[in-house]
Formats: sequence, structure tokens, C-alpha cells
Amino acid sequence: MKQKSGWKAGFHSLYLSVQMSHMAKLNSSYLKLQSGYLFPEIGRRVREYVKANPDKDVIRMGIGDVTRPLVPSVIKAFHAGVSEMGEISTFKGYGPEQGYDFLREAICENDYRARNIHIDPDEIFISDGSKCDTGNIQEIFGPDNKIAIPDPVYPVYVDTTVMSGRTGTIKENGYFEGIVYLPCNEQGGFIPGLPEEKVDIIYLCFPNNPTGTTATKEQLRKWVEYAIENNSIILFDAAYEAYIRESHIPHSIFEIEGARKVAIEFRSFSKKAGFTGTRCAFTVIPKELSAFNEKGDRFPLHSLWYRRHTTKFNGVSYPVQKAAAAVYSDEGKKEVLEVIDYYMENAAILRKSLIESGFNVFGGINAPYVWFKTRTGIKSWELFDILLNEANVVGTPGSGFGPSGEGYFRFSAFADREHVVEAIRRIRKVRI
Amino acid sequence: MKQKSGWKAGFHSLYLSVQMSHMAKLNSSYLKLQSGYLFPEIGRRVREYVKANPDKDVIRMGIGDVTRPLVPSVIKAFHAGVSEMGEISTFKGYGPEQGYDFLREAICENDYRARNIHIDPDEIFISDGSKCDTGNIQEIFGPDNKIAIPDPVYPVYVDTTVMSGRTGTIKENGYFEGIVYLPCNEQGGFIPGLPEEKVDIIYLCFPNNPTGTTATKEQLRKWVEYAIENNSIILFDAAYEAYIRESHIPHSIFEIEGARKVAIEFRSFSKKAGFTGTRCAFTVIPKELSAFNEKGDRFPLHSLWYRRHTTKFNGVSYPVQKAAAAVYSDEGKKEVLEVIDYYMENAAILRKSLIESGFNVFGGINAPYVWFKTRTGIKSWELFDILLNEANVVGTPGSGFGPSGEGYFRFSAFADREHVVEAIRRIRKVRI
Repeated sequence: MKQKSGWKAGFHSLYLSVQMSHMAKLNSSYLKLQSGYLFPEIGRRVREYVKANPDKDVIRMGIGDVTRPLVPSVIKAFHAGVSEMGEISTFKGYGPEQGYDFLREAICENDYRARNIHIDPDEIFISDGSKCDTGNIQEIFGPDNKIAIPDPVYPVYVDTTVMSGRTGTIKENGYFEGIVYLPCNEQGGFIPGLPEEKVDIIYLCFPNNPTGTTATKEQLRKWVEYAIENNSIILFDAAYEAYIRESHIPHSIFEIEGARKVAIEFRSFSKKAGFTGTRCAFTVIPKELSAFNEKGDRFPLHSLWYRRHTTKFNGVSYPVQKAAAAVYSDEGKKEVLEVIDYYMENAAILRKSLIESGFNVFGGINAPYVWFKTRTGIKSWELFDILLNEANVVGTPGSGFGPSGEGYFRFSAFADREHVVEAIRRIRKVRI
Repeated sequence: MKQKSGWKAGFHSLYLSVQMSHMAKLNSSYLKLQSGYLFPEIGRRVREYVKANPDKDVIRMGIGDVTRPLVPSVIKAFHAGVSEMGEISTFKGYGPEQGYDFLREAICENDYRARNIHIDPDEIFISDGSKCDTGNIQEIFGPDNKIAIPDPVYPVYVDTTVMSGRTGTIKENGYFEGIVYLPCNEQGGFIPGLPEEKVDIIYLCFPNNPTGTTATKEQLRKWVEYAIENNSIILFDAAYEAYIRESHIPHSIFEIEGARKVAIEFRSFSKKAGFTGTRCAFTVIPKELSAFNEKGDRFPLHSLWYRRHTTKFNGVSYPVQKAAAAVYSDEGKKEVLEVIDYYMENAAILRKSLIESGFNVFGGINAPYVWFKTRTGIKSWELFDILLNEANVVGTPGSGFGPSGEGYFRFSAFADREHVVEAIRRIRKVRI
């Protein structure tokens, strides 16, 4: 086909732009995204393998999804909540969009006051998931903020930043134009260093997904100080906080002085209490937190998120909120801790075995993820395919979390013990 | 304080813009919104009144919230779903973000195939609410689409359009710069007429909230033809579809030929089955539906919404999906219909009484909302305050749904029969 040139091309593009003003236009930023979000892509490869090999018993330690059932006191409260919905005297219609007071109070008391952290119940917004919250939070910020994102990390931060229109296209190195990446490597203990150029919004995730590493108070303090000095805001994803075992590791960004002015925290019941299929999470926005309006004046973000929450969300299912509140009952706390102990024993078994096999292993001490370096020259997806095909074990390729994850691999400790033991046996035979 | 002028002001604004590039900036579009979303504002006035008058028995027919409990077969399935979450053999972690097949199949079979409408199960996306969906859907469209919105209508369409940055500020007439409003009035039976200027995206809501009116197939056909001719897309909110009683009224935009190419439909279990506090809804995006990319080529919107759903959402709680599917069981259908009959009898009582009192009354025949014209000169919020203070009855001021709603008032039929009867008794005494 001949290319249009000269006035003809000009005419064509003018014609196109006139036409374009009279048609529904899609959000072209979506087209910048790579083929698939990591976890659906893993799911696709596993489904294909299982379809072709229906007799194989595949062990899944790829997607970080819990396997233990909801604990008895949560189930009891969940049933009680459902029963209330069936009686006219106790039926609940629309609840407060930001969540019921009984749940906000329980969170405040147990996750914050008990650790001497100042958070008020009305600074807690109950939601149906941290995945939603960490993406949706971008809506309350203007389009021209510079966003910094660690590499590797949970892919939702990058993907939602691209979808929001704040980036250019992807470059050859796997980075999107417009995002300030914070590479994390072994030498730095997988803790991101401060950026060289100034940034406005910073995603941090500790305990980290995928590396399983944690930040000390001193390390977090540097980020809070950076944010205060640079009028930046930290988006702190603490979805794995319940897996912290060492007493000196902070559970909340709000353990750091000054953080109330510069940080938003995301937490979830998904990993803490097995709610991945039940759906409940929360976001904490202190009232001192502010960003700048067009005149350069500070304006509280709490009121903006409140407005988003009440206008674009309708609250979490009442029985689910009852179930979540039971996590904080005396029985609930004990039961949930037993499940966490179970997963962390899995993590210890995985760590030990991989170290014995001579791998460089990270995480798995204060997080349910074990992260290790592949043998020299083996790429992450290559190892994924070897493990799937030869050991019938599903893990997560490190490069799926960002270019700096290339050459690494993640195992999730969210599995049944017998599967973990069997997976290790198989992996040793394959000699990866 | 003296105003800065001349070079000093110039310097100040230059300084400001340099500074602004190094600070977290909020989404200034939020600041264009009026003080409060309608329903929280009603809630605030009612709470204040109740606080000042704790002895008064206030009857609430303002927010369109159901009052009857979930029906027995829904409760039974809900409990069964919860029990599954407590056993390791039946426990569910992350489900498919777009919803479980059992629910998508049930919807497809009962809401579409049974009416000879062609919709495939994988065109149905299960979500936690139509409020979320009708707002979030804007994310898959580019920023430069011209959006048309009826007036009066459910306020979420306007508010989320403003929040998305697609408008200017509000004008004296209550309209936002940049939105094409479609005024609906008595003469036109509260059906919007086609816009004079071309628009790219059109919100329609039938049965209508707040007017309770419906559109015939012929009326919807005009919109579908308009959308085909103008490369526009219709966002069709059918949240109240279950209340249609007259057989000639279409339940779905997809009953209109050609709609698969130009329409997205939103439905909900909130009003159909009392799920306002339980949370389940769905959005239908046919695979033929497309919008234009920057090159002017058509691109399927189904894949964009799929991407949004998998990246920014994590599915609806499994027990809630089980409960929703029970709405389509033989028992469930019967039970749900009884509840709808109950509410529609309320609507008939309200209609009759208001007509007898000499009001011009609309809706209430195929919708749970009764809409009437206030006496000459009485503004909507004025009537709201009179009813609250003198009759202790809460309704919804028509002007809260848009400027063309001024001078009208909405009663919701979602109430207990005895409250409806008592409300009418009180209203007659006040002689509004």
C-alpha cells in the first residue's frame, strides 16, 4: 500500500481529527500496557499445561493466595451477620460507605492504639481490597504528579499509574516513560534508595511483595524525612504486616514521627485472616495529610478520599464487616495467629531447603514470600517453565514484578504443608 | 492585606509554578464539586433534626434504600457459601475478578436468554455495585469525550464526570461547563430528547431514578440509532429493571436492534433483591462494542474493561455471589417477586394519595419511585424541610437530582407498609 504524503497526508490527518471530535474515544493509556497482568498470565500458562497434562498433580505456589479456611470465630460472626440480614428487625441496607464504626473502632484499637500509634477511627476507610485502594487512590491526585515506584514490586502500582495516563510508553529496558523507578537489589537488601530527581508520590510496600524483605524504622524514617522536605506523599502498602515476627520491625508507617503529615497506609484482611475470597481491607488517611491545590495552598486529602468513597463506592457487605471484626476478638486473634504460624513454618521450610541447595535466599522471615536468585544465566520465566513442566510446581517469575526482578524467583508460603514438602522433593530432583 | 501586583505578582506566580512542580498536587476537579453528595446531605439534615428532637418518630422515604430482609432462599445460599469458606475442602481464595461462572451463567440465562436477548456469560462482569460501575466505567474512555447526562437524574453520573476532570466549573444555572445536559420535563414525559450538539457518551437511566418513568422501545430505538450514526456510546443504567410491570416496556437496552454495538448496561441486585447492604451488581459489555483509538481505529471496549476489572478489582465476596445466584432459583424468583409486589403496592398507595390531594404525580407504575410536582412556588428543599419538621417524613428534594428537578419531590416506595400509611396520614394533616 502506498503511503499518503504531502498535502494528502495532511488532509487525511485533518479529516481524522475533525472526525475524532465526534466519536467515542477510548482511554489510549490502556493500550500502553503490556500484554497481561502478571497473575492472569501465570494462570493462563498453568491452565494450558493442566489441559495438556490432565493426569499431572500441579502444586500452586505462584499467586500469593491463601489456602487455609476462615477461622472458626470469623465463620461464626459471618453466619451471625448473614442471619441478621434475614430478619426485618436486624436487616441492614446501605451502610456507611466508609465502613461501620464497630469495625473501624476494632481496627483502631488493635492495630494502632495497642502499638501506641495515633490514628482515629474516622481516619480509617473500610474497602473491598487493597488492590482496589492502591490503584483508586491515584484519583485524588492531579495528573501532573511525579510518581516513584520500587522495582521489583507488586505490579498493580505501575499498571494503574499507566492506566491513569501519567506515563509515556514502555521503553526497551521495561520501564515506562514518566515513572521514577527505584531499583532494589541484593547489595541494598532490596530496600529502595532515595530518588535522584524530586518525586511527588512514592509507593512503598513493606513487608515487601515479592522480595519478602522488611524496612527498619531508620530506613522508613529516611523516607518520611524525604517526603516532609519535598512535599511528597508516601503510599505505604502494609498488606503483609501480620507476618512480621521480629519485634524491631515497624508494622505501620505511622510508627515514624511526622508520618501523619505525609503518608497513607493500606492494610488488608486478605493475608492477615484469609480474606482473599471474602474481600475486606482498609486505608488510613490521617487528617493532617495534605496536598497542594492549584493556588499552591495545602488542602486535606482526607476530605477528598471521603468524597471519592461516598460517591464512587457503597461500602463493604455487612456480614463481611462482621466477619472482619471477629478477627480482633480474643478467640479470633489466637486462631488467626495459628494460621499465620502455619504459613510461616512453610516459609521456614522453603528457606532452609533452598539455602541447602545453594541458592541465595531472601525474605521468608517477616513475610510469607521466599525470594531467591536463579542459577547464573537462568531467566525468571525460564525457571517458571522448567518448574511447571518438570516438577509441576508453580512459582512466580521475579521479572513479572519489574526489570530488577529478572534472575529471581518467588515462592509463596501460602500452601498446604504436604504440598510444600512435596514441592521441595520434586524441585530437588529437577536440580534447578 | 495588600494585593501583590505588577512584577511582584508575576514573580510570585513564577515562584509558585516552580515550587508546584515539586510538590504533591491534588485532583483539583474534586474542588469543583458542590458541598455534598445529595444523600449524605439528606442524612446530615435528618441526623440534626433527630438529635434536636429525640422523641420524634421520623419516617424515612428519602434515600432509595430497601427495608425488607433478604429472602429465605438467598439467606440459605448465603449461609451455605459462608460454611464453604470454613472448610479446607471447599474454601475459596481469590475468585475470577469478573465473577464466578455459576453467577454469570444464571444471569445470562434468566435476565437475557429468557427474553431472547443475545448476551454471552463472558460479557457479564460481576461487581460490588452499580454506583461503582457507572462511575468507574469512565476510566476506559479518553479524557476528551463529550458526555451527555439527563437532568434530573441519579447524581453519581454528574459527580463522577466532574471528578474525572472532564468538566469546567459549575455555572449559575447549576450546570457544569463541559457536560451536555439533557433536560427532562413534564411535557416530554421526563424522557430526554436527542442533544443538539454531537455527544460521544450518553448516560440513560430507565426505569428512571428519580422520576420513576420508563422509556418505550421506540424511544430507546431513537437513542440507539443516534449512537450508531454518531459513533457514540450509551451507558444504560437498568438498576430498577425488576420493577417494570407493563409488558411492553423493555427491560434491557439490548432488546433494541443494534444496541450490542453501542451500549453498556448496568444492573444490580440492590433493588432487585434487597442487596443494598450485601453488595452485588453487574455490567454487561458486548464484544461488538468498540470505541476509537488515537489513530481513529475501532478497538473493543470489552478487553479494556476486562483489563480494568482484573487490575483494579478483585472480585465479589464468594458467599455474596452464592447468595446472588439464589435469586435465580425457582424459590428465589418467587420470593423476590413477593417483595417487589410489596414495594409496588406501597408505590400505588403513595400515588393514589398524592393524586387525591391534587398533585401532579409521575412514576410509581414501573418503578419504586413516586415523583410529584410541589405546589406553585414551593422549592424542593423547602418542601423537604417542611415535611421533615412538620410531618417527620423524609423524602428527596427533586433539585438534588439536577436543576430541572427543582419544584419536584421524590418519595421512595422502599418502606414498611405501616410507615407509608402513617406518612400519608401525617402529610395530609400538614397540607403541603
